[in-house]
Amino acid sequence: MTTAQQYALKHANRFRSELHELLRIPSVSTDKDYAAECKKAAEWTANQLASIGLSAEVIPTGRHPLVYAEWMGAGPDEPTVLIYGHYDVQPASKEDGWDTEPFEPVERDGKIWGRGTTDDKGQFFAHVKAVESLLQAEGRLPVNVKFIIEGEEESGGESIAKFVHDHPDRLAADVCVISDGSMANKGIPVIVYALRGITAFEVTVYGPKQDLHSGMFGGTVHNPAQALAEIISKLHKEDGTVAVPGFYDDVRILGDNERTELEKVPYTRQAWEADTGAPEPWGESDYTIQERIGARPTLEINGMASGYWGNGVKAIVPEKAWAKISCRLVADQDPATISKLCQDYIMAIAPTTVRVEIKQFAVGTSSPQVDIDTPMMQAAIRAYEKGWGAAPVFKREGGSLPIVGDFQKVLQIPVILMGFGLNTDGLHGPNEHMHIDMFHKGIDTSIVFLNEVAAL
Amino acid sequence: MTTAQQYALKHANRFRSELHELLRIPSVSTDKDYAAECKKAAEWTANQLASIGLSAEVIPTGRHPLVYAEWMGAGPDEPTVLIYGHYDVQPASKEDGWDTEPFEPVERDGKIWGRGTTDDKGQFFAHVKAVESLLQAEGRLPVNVKFIIEGEEESGGESIAKFVHDHPDRLAADVCVISDGSMANKGIPVIVYALRGITAFEVTVYGPKQDLHSGMFGGTVHNPAQALAEIISKLHKEDGTVAVPGFYDDVRILGDNERTELEKVPYTRQAWEADTGAPEPWGESDYTIQERIGARPTLEINGMASGYWGNGVKAIVPEKAWAKISCRLVADQDPATISKLCQDYIMAIAPTTVRVEIKQFAVGTSSPQVDIDTPMMQAAIRAYEKGWGAAPVFKREGGSLPIVGDFQKVLQIPVILMGFGLNTDGLHGPNEHMHIDMFHKGIDTSIVFLNEVAAL
Repeated sequence: MTTAQQYALKHANRFRSELHELLRIPSVSTDKDYAAECKKAAEWTANQLASIGLSAEVIPTGRHPLVYAEWMGAGPDEPTVLIYGHYDVQPASKEDGWDTEPFEPVERDGKIWGRGTTDDKGQFFAHVKAVESLLQAEGRLPVNVKFIIEGEEESGGESIAKFVHDHPDRLAADVCVISDGSMANKGIPVIVYALRGITAFEVTVYGPKQDLHSGMFGGTVHNPAQALAEIISKLHKEDGTVAVPGFYDDVRILGDNERTELEKVPYTRQAWEADTGAPEPWGESDYTIQERIGARPTLEINGMASGYWGNGVKAIVPEKAWAKISCRLVADQDPATISKLCQDYIMAIAPTTVRVEIKQFAVGTSSPQVDIDTPMMQAAIRAYEKGWGAAPVFKREGGSLPIVGDFQKVLQIPVILMGFGLNTDGLHGPNEHMHIDMFHKGIDTSIVFLNEVAAL
Repeated sequence: MTTAQQYALKHANRFRSELHELLRIPSVSTDKDYAAECKKAAEWTANQLASIGLSAEVIPTGRHPLVYAEWMGAGPDEPTVLIYGHYDVQPASKEDGWDTEPFEPVERDGKIWGRGTTDDKGQFFAHVKAVESLLQAEGRLPVNVKFIIEGEEESGGESIAKFVHDHPDRLAADVCVISDGSMANKGIPVIVYALRGITAFEVTVYGPKQDLHSGMFGGTVHNPAQALAEIISKLHKEDGTVAVPGFYDDVRILGDNERTELEKVPYTRQAWEADTGAPEPWGESDYTIQERIGARPTLEINGMASGYWGNGVKAIVPEKAWAKISCRLVADQDPATISKLCQDYIMAIAPTTVRVEIKQFAVGTSSPQVDIDTPMMQAAIRAYEKGWGAAPVFKREGGSLPIVGDFQKVLQIPVILMGFGLNTDGLHGPNEHMHIDMFHKGIDTSIVFLNEVAAL
């Protein structure tokens, strides 16, 4: 065990209580009512980075601020590691089915419970504490380190995308490491080499000018909830494929070799049932569950609402109905193209008895794929072996991290996706949590990674 | 003008300010959180009836109390008029699109604005003030009068149905008058002779055990919002008819004579457009708009919800989706039979990739039709002629008043549906209102009606 790892062990409880402070800030980036909380989380993070010895600043943007910090004391002959994370979180309220308040973190059963524990506050904070441990235990870092922590990962990430394009010099580095992912099993850490892109929009169906008495007008007005349901029902075919013409045209074909490789650590039906609790799998029958998640694009209804959904009965024909729809994309689909295809199709099938409007949300990037054969990736493998205690496997993942594509394209550096979470951590849903031992193993892995990069 | 009408004119402002007191009580019967408010509205109504000289009482029930009051001073040789109304209202909140607070009534542009103004507080209160005016101006009523005011009209009405069946003696009368309806034009009052029945239920589609990250699981889980949309899309055929097998089996055929009669005061497309604001009519093309509303059964989505419907994006696969569905029924459809047909069909088409549950709400009665050729109906015609100032027309209406069937069947008396509202009053929607002059004409019409019944 290195002296930095010893330091981390000794200060474990303090590290977590600091994390609790950050978790208590409801930095929900998708809802503009929480903008002040996002700013607060950015300031907290910058103060934290400054307090451990980095020069840190909060960078205002058009929406939620960025946090930038650096320690360049290793000198120009040593490599520079860029560490990315995000302080923003998904919306959460206790009514969604949480056992405890989402923004009042508690430790129970070996886990920290709260929104953002695993996605992504707990994960990026492991790197912060790794850097603190190295600086405190050894007086210096083995490499130069830059942190860039954004606040719009859950809501489009335009501000960091703009910053990367406008100031590539400030983020110049030899490798980028991102911990914002998860593994199926603590004993088999995972390095993700492909992610899905995303695009999202909202469809609103307008019917009458206001809610109508269903007795006085029912049977003469095309009910907007029904019309929306009719539209949604036409977005997929019976076989589970997306019915939007052209949707699959640009999808990069999954080769036989890659399918064989992925099958080595299959995602079994049993594991899927345990993770989802759903009655039986659904989707494209020509692909395994793992392939559907990692290598195939999807179209999902994220939410919908119309009329009266509270207790009891309200006998109305609703004024309108709306649905939030997002598509997960794979290489080489272009988000803007897919959005247009979907929206054109919806407008084409919309009946004339209602009026349909579509609002596009922020468009993500297309799915990045990361090169596996690099020295930096070898450093990451050794970091897991020595820091985590197990060799990693390589896999595709279904989530989206738009910034990965920007870092690859603009900064021209390898991006290592080094997740410290578990598939079952409940991210984006109720009762999100992070395993306490995984938080601490993350710190150890980050310490080893920085040492291994220096040793290359 | 009778002395009672003179009294009503003199006290017009006070009558309305008393009505405002009742309108301020949010007696929403469909939501159990408002049970105390329903009780308060019942007590207010009983106090009001006692204060004008009737013996009044609040009768507890299994849910919301009934209000009963009587004045039997005309003696056993005079007829008895039973006046029905309901103090409960539909849910309302300013966010639904109200210009003013729904439970803070205001008078503006010749109208009283607020939830319950026209449905039904303002309408039954006109009869209360007619009785007060007669008692104060003439020292007595020309007939015996009983009031029965319920608190569950918007939520099934089981308690009054039970009361009518258990205590028909207490409600014994020669005629029942109900003012809980509306006309298209102030100058052409309407007596409704047929109403639709209703039945309502809630369908919930369960998918995964909790909201899931759409990147990590999207494409492998049958999205409950999508599955619900697929079910809803199969409830109607392309031609606007309900697709549930057997749905129309018991519908009483609309005869050619009646169709011709109804066509005399048609509900034009222009009027429909003005009332609904919808782009174009929808529904059964073999029937006119008026027939679709009055003489044909329907199936409506009253509301639905799933996942995240607030601001911005939340990239999840929702845990569940639910829809509130109600059917408007016509003679001779049985509500329980229709509910079962609908629910069996939904369970039959539900995919095995999700789990579906259906909850039945209170079941109403089937559509009552009232006999037009009665002396009491002649009294009602004269009441409109002399009190309102115009002769009424007879029509079918699409709404439901379950109690009408009970009064007809159990009490064996004619039921006169004497509406004092306007189609455009916004009942069940935002900005519900009642025209001030129609409230006062209602009082006059009620005064004349009681005199005309005595004169028969």
